[in-house]
Amino acid sequence: MEKCAPVLSACMQRMKGIQDALDILNGKWKIRIMAALTFGPKRFVDLQMIIEGIGPKMLSKELQLLELNGLVRREVVDNKPVGVNYVITEYGLTLETVIKELSHWGNTHRIQVMGKV
Amino acid sequence: MEKCAPVLSACMQRMKGIQDALDILNGKWKIRIMAALTFGPKRFVDLQMIIEGIGPKMLSKELQLLELNGLVRREVVDNKPVGVNYVITEYGLTLETVIKELSHWGNTHRIQVMGKV
Repeated sequence: MEKCAPVLSACMQRMKGIQDALDILNGKWKIRIMAALTFGPKRFVDLQMIIEGIGPKMLSKELQLLELNGLVRREVVDNKPVGVNYVITEYGLTLETVIKELSHWGNTHRIQVMGKV
Repeated sequence: MEKCAPVLSACMQRMKGIQDALDILNGKWKIRIMAALTFGPKRFVDLQMIIEGIGPKMLSKELQLLELNGLVRREVVDNKPVGVNYVITEYGLTLETVIKELSHWGNTHRIQVMGKV
């Protein structure tokens, strides 16, 4: 990290933070799943519908990893038939600012680059 | 996107933004490269040093893609020997908030989960 000048420690700190965040949010799906869950609990099939292109195996795997990291929890819903909701945890909600900023940037990028709303 | 309730359009808008942002920042390296460049222009070898684990082929490819998307530009430096700096563009700097927030989250996550600073 020698060349992280001119503000070495701030740069190293930022790089370390990015590394740790991406270790958790790696891949193309986790941020999308978290983004969908910021709008309230969702069933598995809802998530599949909202997150374009994700297959059931991948969704299942990603949800498990997010659960392991304490960002998402399963909630059994006593309907008939009994169902499961995926809910963002309080800790998962600490990602909301990142998600909002990223989405805002993406929307602005699309308008700027492609002229589409 | 039928199940993006309760606030359908806001949810769709957020998902679209995330999708577009990740289309540009896909993979495990681009955000790291942009983060390093928020601390000033860097030579290729500097970037390789700062971004742990990236190989020269991958770094070269990723820089080209970032350049294509207008987030990074090359700047020839009239040293002896002549060198090239990679510089974040004004447009690239619009990502700074996202990068700061993500890094802040990663640092907080590490402290919370692993108890390490």
